[in-house]
Amino acid sequence: MDTKQKAMEMHKEWKGKIEVVSTAPLTNKQDLSIAYTPGVAEPCLAIEKNKDLAYDLTRKWNLVAVVTDGTAVLGLGDIGPEAAMPVMEGKCILFKHFGNVDAFPICIGTKDTEKIIETVKLIAPTFGGINLEDIGAPRCFEIEERLKKELDIPVFHDDQHGTAIVVIAGVINALRLVGKNTKDVTVVVNGAGAAGTAITRMLISLGVKDILLCDRQGILYPGSPHNDASKEEIAKITNVHKKQGKLIDAMDGADVFIGVSAANVVTEEMVAKMNKDAIVFAMANPVPEIMPDLAKRAGARVVGTGRSDFPNQVNNVLAFPGVFRGALDVRAREINEEMKLAAANAIAELIPQEEMNEEYIIPDAFDLRVAEKIAKAVAQAAIDTKVSRL
Amino acid sequence: MDTKQKAMEMHKEWKGKIEVVSTAPLTNKQDLSIAYTPGVAEPCLAIEKNKDLAYDLTRKWNLVAVVTDGTAVLGLGDIGPEAAMPVMEGKCILFKHFGNVDAFPICIGTKDTEKIIETVKLIAPTFGGINLEDIGAPRCFEIEERLKKELDIPVFHDDQHGTAIVVIAGVINALRLVGKNTKDVTVVVNGAGAAGTAITRMLISLGVKDILLCDRQGILYPGSPHNDASKEEIAKITNVHKKQGKLIDAMDGADVFIGVSAANVVTEEMVAKMNKDAIVFAMANPVPEIMPDLAKRAGARVVGTGRSDFPNQVNNVLAFPGVFRGALDVRAREINEEMKLAAANAIAELIPQEEMNEEYIIPDAFDLRVAEKIAKAVAQAAIDTKVSRL
Repeated sequence: MDTKQKAMEMHKEWKGKIEVVSTAPLTNKQDLSIAYTPGVAEPCLAIEKNKDLAYDLTRKWNLVAVVTDGTAVLGLGDIGPEAAMPVMEGKCILFKHFGNVDAFPICIGTKDTEKIIETVKLIAPTFGGINLEDIGAPRCFEIEERLKKELDIPVFHDDQHGTAIVVIAGVINALRLVGKNTKDVTVVVNGAGAAGTAITRMLISLGVKDILLCDRQGILYPGSPHNDASKEEIAKITNVHKKQGKLIDAMDGADVFIGVSAANVVTEEMVAKMNKDAIVFAMANPVPEIMPDLAKRAGARVVGTGRSDFPNQVNNVLAFPGVFRGALDVRAREINEEMKLAAANAIAELIPQEEMNEEYIIPDAFDLRVAEKIAKAVAQAAIDTKVSRL
Repeated sequence: MDTKQKAMEMHKEWKGKIEVVSTAPLTNKQDLSIAYTPGVAEPCLAIEKNKDLAYDLTRKWNLVAVVTDGTAVLGLGDIGPEAAMPVMEGKCILFKHFGNVDAFPICIGTKDTEKIIETVKLIAPTFGGINLEDIGAPRCFEIEERLKKELDIPVFHDDQHGTAIVVIAGVINALRLVGKNTKDVTVVVNGAGAAGTAITRMLISLGVKDILLCDRQGILYPGSPHNDASKEEIAKITNVHKKQGKLIDAMDGADVFIGVSAANVVTEEMVAKMNKDAIVFAMANPVPEIMPDLAKRAGARVVGTGRSDFPNQVNNVLAFPGVFRGALDVRAREINEEMKLAAANAIAELIPQEEMNEEYIIPDAFDLRVAEKIAKAVAQAAIDTKVSRL
C-alpha cells in the first residue's frame, strides 16, 4: 500500500487524531465537588481577582490554538476550513509529541482578514499562545502583525517563522562548514510569500548584508511596478546593489540559494553560476526547485530540501514545538526576533563541529533533544529581552 | 481540609483539568508521513470534495465547544472569561467521563451578543456541536436561537435545557409516584431566567396545562409593565387563568413547585398552601429556596434540590453527556424538543416503578447507565424527527 492509500486507511481508522482527556480524577461525588461544583468556585474567584492566576489554575499556560482559514494548506491551496482540519490535527499531535504542548485546531470559516483577527482575539482568553497556520499571503502578514500588537500572548505564523528558523539553522551550519562569514555572503531567496519574507528578515537579523529576494517576475527592487505593499517594504531593506533581472541573474555570483517557490524552477546552469562551495536549499514540496543530484553535479557543495528522503531536511517540526515550549514556560508575551534567532542557533548547535558534514547540517526531525534545547534557548532569550511574565 | 481549600490545592496541582492528546502513533518518519505530510493531503482532498467526510476523517464527529462569555458563572455572576475557565474545564471532563465526548473550552472575551454569535459561527467548522454555558439571560436566548438557525450542528444551552431535562425527569417520576396526571396539575416555576424559561417550555411540551411562572415581581402575565420581550412571550403561553399576585398566591393550590431562583424565598406557609402530595424542587445553589426538612414538615411529599447531600439531586451532569452523545452519534443537525423529551423520559425510566420512592425519583449522577440510555433515546428521536445526517 502506498503512502496515500495508507494515509486514507489510517485516517478512517483514527476518526480524528486528537482527543481531549482529563487530568483530574472523577470517580465519585467527592471528586465531582472538587473538580466541579461547588469547589470549582474557589479557583474561579481567585482568577477573577487576579487574571494571571489563570496560568496556575487552568490549562491556559499550555494551550495553543492552531488557527487556520484553510486558504493555503500544504501545497493544496485554498481548500477551506473543514478540509484543513486533518493538517491542523496533525500539527496538534506534533506539538504534543515533541513539545508537550496542548494544541487545539481552530478552523475559521471566513477569509475576511478583520473577521479572522477579531475571532482569534475573542477566543484568546482560553489560550497561552496562538499558532497561525496555512493562511495565504499577503493576508497572513496583516493578521499576524495585528494579533501580535493586540494580544499579550505569543502569536506565531509557523509557515513564516518556523520555516525561517530551520532554514537559518541550516544556513548557519552550512556557512560554518564551507568557512564563509554571514557578513560577506550573497544570498538569493526565491519566493516572496510568507516563508520567503520571513527567511529574508531573519537573514537580516543574522547579519547577512547582501540578499536578493526574487518572485516570479525576478529580483525585487524598490519601485517595481509589480510590488504590492509588503513586497515594496521588503524590497527596500534588501538588494543593496539595486540589481534588476531574473532569478538566473540573481544567482550569478551568489553563495547561498534558498528556494520556497516551485518545482524545477532552478536549472543546473543557474547553480553553475554560483560561487564556489555553493549552498542550495531547494524546499518546494513535494518536488524541489532542483533535485539534489543535479544541484551537486552543477557544483553545489551543500544541498537541503523539504523532503525526508534526502539529507538535510528542512522540517518545521524541528522548530515550532520547542519555540512554543520555551515561550509558554516563561509565559512570554510574544515571540520576538531574539527568541527566533536563539531557536535557530540552538538547532544549529545540536550538530557538533566534528560530526558536521555536507549531508548532516540539520538534526533529524525525530531527535527529541531538539525541542528541549530550543525551549531552553527561547525561554532565556524571552527573559533577556524582558517579554517573560515570570 | 474543607472543600474550598481542597479545590484550590488540587487546581494548583492539576494546572488545568484538560489535556489534548494524540490518537495516532508518532514514533518514526513513516508515522509522520501518514499522520502529517505528505500523506495527510489525501484526507484533506477527500473532505474538500465532500465536506461530510470531515465526520469520518477528523475529530469533528466528537468535538463539542463549551462556549461561555463568563457572565453568569455558577452563582458567581459576571466574573469574566478567564475566571470562567475552571468551570468550563470541569464541564469538558464531565463530557468525556460520562459521554466520551471530546469537549474543549472556548471562553470568549466579549459580552456583545452579535460578536459572540459571529465568533461561534466562525469557529464552528472544527466542531460537531456547541454547548453554550453560563451566558447571562436574556442574551443567552438570542445567542442560542440565532446559532440554532444559522448553524447545521447541534447548539444547546445547558443552563436552560440540561437543567430542564433533569427537572422534567423528576417531575415525571414524582407525578407517577403520587398518582397525578400531567394534564391536571398546576405547576409553579419560580425564576424566569434561562433555566426557568426552558423548564416552562418543556412542561408545556410534556402536556402540563396550568403553569404559573414567577419572577421577583410575582406571577408573570401578558401586558405586565415589568415584562421584557422574552418574559412577555412566555407570559402569553402560560398562566391560563390570567392570575396576578405574588409567589405565595401562585403556590396556593399548586401541585408542583419548581424553584430556580434564590435561597430561602419559599416559606413553610407557602408549601402548606399547596395541594395534597405536593412536589417541591428547590434548586437554588448552594442554599435552596426552602430546606428539604422544612418543606417536608410543611406537607411536601417529594422534595428535590440541586445538592448532592440531599436525596433527589437535580444535577445537569445527568443530561448533557448523554444528550450530546446521542446527537453526535447520528450527526444530528440540532437538538430539538423531541430529543430533549426523549432524554427526560430516559432518565425517568431508569428508576423502576418498584424501586421508586419519595427519596429516589432521580438516578444518581454517577450511574453510568444514564448517559448511555439517554444517548440511545436521543439518537432515536433525532432519526424519528429527521434531523439525523446518517
